[in-house]
Amino acid sequence: MTDKTLIELLNWRYATKKMNPAKDVPQEKIDAIIEAIRLAPTSSGTQPFELIIVTNPEVQGKICAAASNQSPITECSHLLVFAAWDNYTEERIDDVTKLNVEARGEIPLIHQYYGNLKTNYVPRDAEVNYAHAARQAYIALGVALVAAAEQEVDSTPMEGFSPPEVDEILGLKERGLRSVVLLPLGYRDPTGDWLLPMAKVRKSREDMVTQVS
Amino acid sequence: MTDKTLIELLNWRYATKKMNPAKDVPQEKIDAIIEAIRLAPTSSGTQPFELIIVTNPEVQGKICAAASNQSPITECSHLLVFAAWDNYTEERIDDVTKLNVEARGEIPLIHQYYGNLKTNYVPRDAEVNYAHAARQAYIALGVALVAAAEQEVDSTPMEGFSPPEVDEILGLKERGLRSVVLLPLGYRDPTGDWLLPMAKVRKSREDMVTQVS
Repeated sequence: MTDKTLIELLNWRYATKKMNPAKDVPQEKIDAIIEAIRLAPTSSGTQPFELIIVTNPEVQGKICAAASNQSPITECSHLLVFAAWDNYTEERIDDVTKLNVEARGEIPLIHQYYGNLKTNYVPRDAEVNYAHAARQAYIALGVALVAAAEQEVDSTPMEGFSPPEVDEILGLKERGLRSVVLLPLGYRDPTGDWLLPMAKVRKSREDMVTQVS
Repeated sequence: MTDKTLIELLNWRYATKKMNPAKDVPQEKIDAIIEAIRLAPTSSGTQPFELIIVTNPEVQGKICAAASNQSPITECSHLLVFAAWDNYTEERIDDVTKLNVEARGEIPLIHQYYGNLKTNYVPRDAEVNYAHAARQAYIALGVALVAAAEQEVDSTPMEGFSPPEVDEILGLKERGLRSVVLLPLGYRDPTGDWLLPMAKVRKSREDMVTQVS
């Protein structure tokens, strides 16, 4: 698919600020990105988020208005919305248990493990559970950014939007979901993007890493 | 480095439950994983976390005791601890601003952008800021899991530990940091790992994805 290393992919990608609305991402590339997100690991395998893929221009327009009019939202060909569970519930953890038993068989340990998880998670404050679920979505976001780069697809991770407004536009509240991050997928407009020629900025390894040896 | 696709890497990796303590990960592989973490994107480029790499057996032992004695913590050759900023402060955002100016030059927009960020972030509750910083660390965690798999290194993302105890062991509080997730890096013990032969469990694409077209 690509002969680039991960480091090369991470150096190639950038938070695209201007996309070419005339260029659509082919379905097989979208499929590969979705599959990578689906395979991303999450805490206790709960996968406590869903993915909304918006390709409807009218809906993209509404979301764009709820996100300070950041243009990649309407210029992209596919807008991914990561929506985390608003809470851990008995039913949701039972579904995870069922999925595990289907894949691995009737193992007592599975029921014991997820039984403990219910005991720990369900009584907790919904905000604590949502915060935990949102973090899991961010693991998948990290994987999605690599997946897009591998497919030579540009992307723009975006937190600068009104989650309640986006939840309203997509009817997420009724589904027990809360939007956490947006990821427009498309192709850069090389002449119109002010960020493209800028150097990537990262702190040094020395400033990031401490060794305890 | 590898001719596997991202999807193949994600299928290869699993949360290793038993590592071979006799096998150390070569330094060049650790370097590649660290570099991928360093290049992971974060909100407004703040990179609001640090990475502690523990190779000291005594310290690993203490952390293991604070993590329900999960054995990969002591069996691994390198234990990564992702530690998020406990808060956004003027000084921290000024450092990010400085780094941007060094890489991109004296652009008024940079000062304006991070000035706005300070106005928004600094007055917020420390818990809100920490929660935001922790999410950014999870993007890097997602990238790190791919990086390890690319290097054919096994890894075990772990949330099941006492953050206050780990913070105490590593002296993180004094540095304004809070441990969020552990990632032992090492090599699987194929005969001793109960999880290795088990099927990977993921919800179906239908259960994860909604299309709004």
